Amino acid sequence: MDTFETIMKRKSIRNYSEKPVPAESVKKLLEVARLAPSGSNRQPWRFVAVQDAKRIKLIKMFSEGLSGNPTLVIAICAEAAEPDTYLDIGIATENIMLEAVELGLGTCAIGSFSEEPVKQLLGIPKEIPLILLISVGYPEGEPRLRPRKALEEIAYSEKYGERLAL
Amino acid sequence: MDTFETIMKRKSIRNYSEKPVPAESVKKLLEVARLAPSGSNRQPWRFVAVQDAKRIKLIKMFSEGLSGNPTLVIAICAEAAEPDTYLDIGIATENIMLEAVELGLGTCAIGSFSEEPVKQLLGIPKEIPLILLISVGYPEGEPRLRPRKALEEIAYSEKYGERLAL
Repeated sequence: MDTFETIMKRKSIRNYSEKPVPAESVKKLLEVARLAPSGSNRQPWRFVAVQDAKRIKLIKMFSEGLSGNPTLVIAICAEAAEPDTYLDIGIATENIMLEAVELGLGTCAIGSFSEEPVKQLLGIPKEIPLILLISVGYPEGEPRLRPRKALEEIAYSEKYGERLAL
Repeated sequence: MDTFETIMKRKSIRNYSEKPVPAESVKKLLEVARLAPSGSNRQPWRFVAVQDAKRIKLIKMFSEGLSGNPTLVIAICAEAAEPDTYLDIGIATENIMLEAVELGLGTCAIGSFSEEPVKQLLGIPKEIPLILLISVGYPEGEPRLRPRKALEEIAYSEKYGERLAL
């Protein structure tokens, strides 16, 4: 699958089958996150791969945005909660979500969770912010489609607001 | 090229040939950004594709982080400078940078620029933050390699700090 196809195929998945994610795939998802670029090559991220069903159930209790029953949750922490770090983590997140498509997996990035209890469940130190959760698993059913704005609404040529000339 | 290969192949490119980026490729880079997921599907981004050589030269004067002579600069603005928006823009940025690899192009994400003068050059309204510049062009020479931390340094199993068991 080429990159364009992968990007087009990626949808946020909120229903998962019970089939576990193989260790090899978990490793590949972490590996692509590792390879992401970051400002000044800081690599400000830390990843916790959670596959224990009981722990995932507990995380779910404190994560409003977490739908379905993923068999893997990747928690992404940062050295510090600076704007640049959020950019870096967004980049690493997309690597994970695209590689997941390639592996036949579905993902959903979740920003809506109660940070303190989830941090406690994952043993994350006080000074380390928890930025994002990614739910992962084999998709079940059809994902809800989310329409996008037209290209002309969001992209301009040469100057802000100028008609895209391509 | 599959996604893993694309991710591995992507390097930050700081030297470009003079060959311009075809309109079709510019469009594809904007299209993959458009397809990126965002919190609550907000799509908080706006993209300005700059190909005018004089304008790029002017941008460069105010952008410390911009190396080489890219033939395309994509400026990414946001509706608001919130942490979640930075995550969304990181995700869209990686779509652009990976699709560029597929198209034979090189990119570099640049956070180091003087926001006010660059905004003026691009006609970006006062209330719209300029978050990131991406330089784009056909790579020239060999990119500088940036080592990554080992997987075990940045990834844990089940709990923060616990040895990766995969």
